[in-house]
Amino acid sequence: MGTVKLWSDEEVSRDVRVKAVFDDIRATRQSDFVNNVWRGLANQPAVLERTWGQVKAIMMTPGALDPLTRELIYIAVSTANGCGYCVHSHTAAATARGMTAAQHGELLAIIGLASQTNALVTALQLPIDPEFLAPRGPDTAANDSD
Amino acid sequence: MGTVKLWSDEEVSRDVRVKAVFDDIRATRQSDFVNNVWRGLANQPAVLERTWGQVKAIMMTPGALDPLTRELIYIAVSTANGCGYCVHSHTAAATARGMTAAQHGELLAIIGLASQTNALVTALQLPIDPEFLAPRGPDTAANDSD
Amino acid sequence: MGTVKLWSDEEVSRDVRVKAVFDDIRATRQSDFVNNVWRGLANQPAVLERTWGQVKAIMMTPGALDPLTRELIYIAVSTANGCGYCVHSHTAAATARGMTAAQHGELLAIIGLASQTNALVTALQLPIDPEFLAPRGPDTAANDSD
Amino acid sequence: MGTVKLWSDEEVSRDVRVKAVFDDIRATRQSDFVNNVWRGLANQPAVLERTWGQVKAIMMTPGALDPLTRELIYIAVSTANGCGYCVHSHTAAATARGMTAAQHGELLAIIGLASQTNALVTALQLPIDPEFLAPRGPDTAANDSD
Amino acid sequence: MGTVKLWSDEEVSRDVRVKAVFDDIRATRQSDFVNNVWRGLANQPAVLERTWGQVKAIMMTPGALDPLTRELIYIAVSTANGCGYCVHSHTAAATARGMTAAQHGELLAIIGLASQTNALVTALQLPIDPEFLAPRGPDTAANDSD
Amino acid sequence: MGTVKLWSDEEVSRDVRVKAVFDDIRATRQSDFVNNVWRGLANQPAVLERTWGQVKAIMMTPGALDPLTRELIYIAVSTANGCGYCVHSHTAAATARGMTAAQHGELLAIIGLASQTNALVTALQLPIDPEFLAPRGPDTAANDSD
Repeated sequence: MGTVKLWSDEEVSRDVRVKAVFDDIRATRQSDFVNNVWRGLANQPAVLERTWGQVKAIMMTPGALDPLTRELIYIAVSTANGCGYCVHSHTAAATARGMTAAQHGELLAIIGLASQTNALVTALQLPIDPEFLAPRGPDTAANDSD
Repeated sequence: MGTVKLWSDEEVSRDVRVKAVFDDIRATRQSDFVNNVWRGLANQPAVLERTWGQVKAIMMTPGALDPLTRELIYIAVSTANGCGYCVHSHTAAATARGMTAAQHGELLAIIGLASQTNALVTALQLPIDPEFLAPRGPDTAANDSD
Repeated sequence: MGTVKLWSDEEVSRDVRVKAVFDDIRATRQSDFVNNVWRGLANQPAVLERTWGQVKAIMMTPGALDPLTRELIYIAVSTANGCGYCVHSHTAAATARGMTAAQHGELLAIIGLASQTNALVTALQLPIDPEFLAPRGPDTAANDSD
Repeated sequence: MGTVKLWSDEEVSRDVRVKAVFDDIRATRQSDFVNNVWRGLANQPAVLERTWGQVKAIMMTPGALDPLTRELIYIAVSTANGCGYCVHSHTAAATARGMTAAQHGELLAIIGLASQTNALVTALQLPIDPEFLAPRGPDTAANDSD
Repeated sequence: MGTVKLWSDEEVSRDVRVKAVFDDIRATRQSDFVNNVWRGLANQPAVLERTWGQVKAIMMTPGALDPLTRELIYIAVSTANGCGYCVHSHTAAATARGMTAAQHGELLAIIGLASQTNALVTALQLPIDPEFLAPRGPDTAANDSD
Repeated sequence: MGTVKLWSDEEVSRDVRVKAVFDDIRATRQSDFVNNVWRGLANQPAVLERTWGQVKAIMMTPGALDPLTRELIYIAVSTANGCGYCVHSHTAAATARGMTAAQHGELLAIIGLASQTNALVTALQLPIDPEFLAPRGPDTAANDSD
């Protein structure tokens, strides 16, 4: 499985641009383990840099949602998109951030329920209730500021 | 738009089975407003009953995840599944449960990021790291019990 | 809405290639009504011809599945793919082929259930049971032969 | 592969709630074989109970659609949702319910055709023909009643 | 893995209809290698013939898009649809048609970006700008003519 | 339609951070027209900045793929993901970059074909041919360097 080569640590060490990203991944996560998504993206340094930059900004910067909630949302999206690798890696990340079996069970239940109602609503082709369209203006005081 | 008729309150009042669900929706939510998904499902009483029963059990029963977190997960799944109606109704529900503009912004950022990495991982067809496969056994004490 | 022009009957009448397809649609369906999908595809005669040729061969040729069952499958796929136009047109086609409200209700229930279990299975990343892999060889006597 | 532990029969026998569902699966299907989806859901008893309850009500209760047609619809949805496990398990279920190679071939052809036209229609962003919007009222006499 | 038997060359040689398609695949591609998609479709000769006919007409006939561009589009669709086999086979095909690592990197970046903005736009449920609706009439002189 | 307010130019002019992005959009595109996706993202300045930054880097920086090819890939992904707004906006962008009716027709044909074969392959659950797994090493000389 795989459409590209996965870079070994030895190969990474020979490419300055890739090595800088891997060093930052290890320092930021405080772990020597670098998983396959980064070893595959190493073939494309610009994509590697941009992707890691976003993961760091969106998932690892303190903000309005706590780290575990962010991982639950990530699992939900990855499941709906059918990305097995991503479901695996973010279920592991959520577990590392303290997800309990009860929380996992409720996450599964919500993902299953939403997938079911999404399908029912699509099959019925429902018009959107005007009540749901009320404009929500910019809330500049509380806005995101990463 | 719509593949089925949407039931008016008057029509609902003439069907005992449908009326019982609508009464319970209004009592549970403490609001007279019943949105179109229920008016469309009214054509199929068994589907209506089962769907409402699940929404009540999964989204409205106290548990290991707070009500706002559940709605954020619901929005994430609905977005990934491309259900416009569901994105509208659950964004409204999340707002009613106190979602701030900053939280909405972070939710959007995570949904966008996960969609991007899901696609990159799928294009690379990455093998799953063995580190992500560690079994997590049943945690019966903490298990869900609704 | 629309990324291409929808051809009027007058415009169709001026293009020999497009007119031939429209004439065949009307003759095959024994109806003068030609819906928008064909009016949009008219911009691309080769795509129009290929698409209509397949619809005719797969949906309108007698075979091992009856016409209503074929439409139910079409609605199921269209719903899962989130194509609102297709859900509308094939729900109308299924109704024209005799779909009852009870059948529609069961179709909805199955689509909803499958969407839910699809999501649960993807979130659990289950290995396939070896029992499901038993080879089914070619059954040439019963094979399709359109 | 797998984000959760799969329960063995020995582990199932030690959990009263899970054992009750497994006993009912075996009794209902009249088979000792219990496939992995139930062994994975066993980690979450509430999700296990709800999911099995729905499968039993929707797929195994006599109704307006015959058992094989239900499985064909299930395969169609599972394919469109990209759930490999589900495609495997429901293709096996359809085969057990008598699906012939010719029926399988037509099912594949319809799934492929619908996926193609879904994509073409989405690329063209077609407006829905008003002819497809005719309301279909509740048909209470024929309605579902499980 | 697999819901159907994969036909060996020996089995293919015993079925006149299947053999004719395999012979044409080998002659058209000027290669003896026939990949699994054709060996699986061999169980359904009509589907096999139609599918190969379309692949030949759309991907292998000279036209307005060069062969590499066609494969890049194919990879993009296959990735968004989550078809691992297809991503593998068409990444190989694109490589055979001269795709460089830089082109692959840009393809990945666009697929990732589009997936991200698709999700953001869906979460925002944006109305379409009227500027995007300008009709594009038929350009008969330049039209496709395969 | 819409889960957030769309910012008017007047509102944009009062927010320094949002205004900077809008100014750059107008300067980069050499056009005064700013479409709704940016007016919706304006509610979340951080998401707005990151998204525009990526669009500029990936779609507007000279590289290994020409601008029209990039737009064709964007349309393909947006269609497969079912994002109507995105299909509209990028079909307009491709037209502005010179897409002919013949090229549009071939794009549609490839999107339709790939969607069909993706579904067939998923329904067959085919094992990946080992021939498709040959590693492609980093091609550092030709690598992306934006």
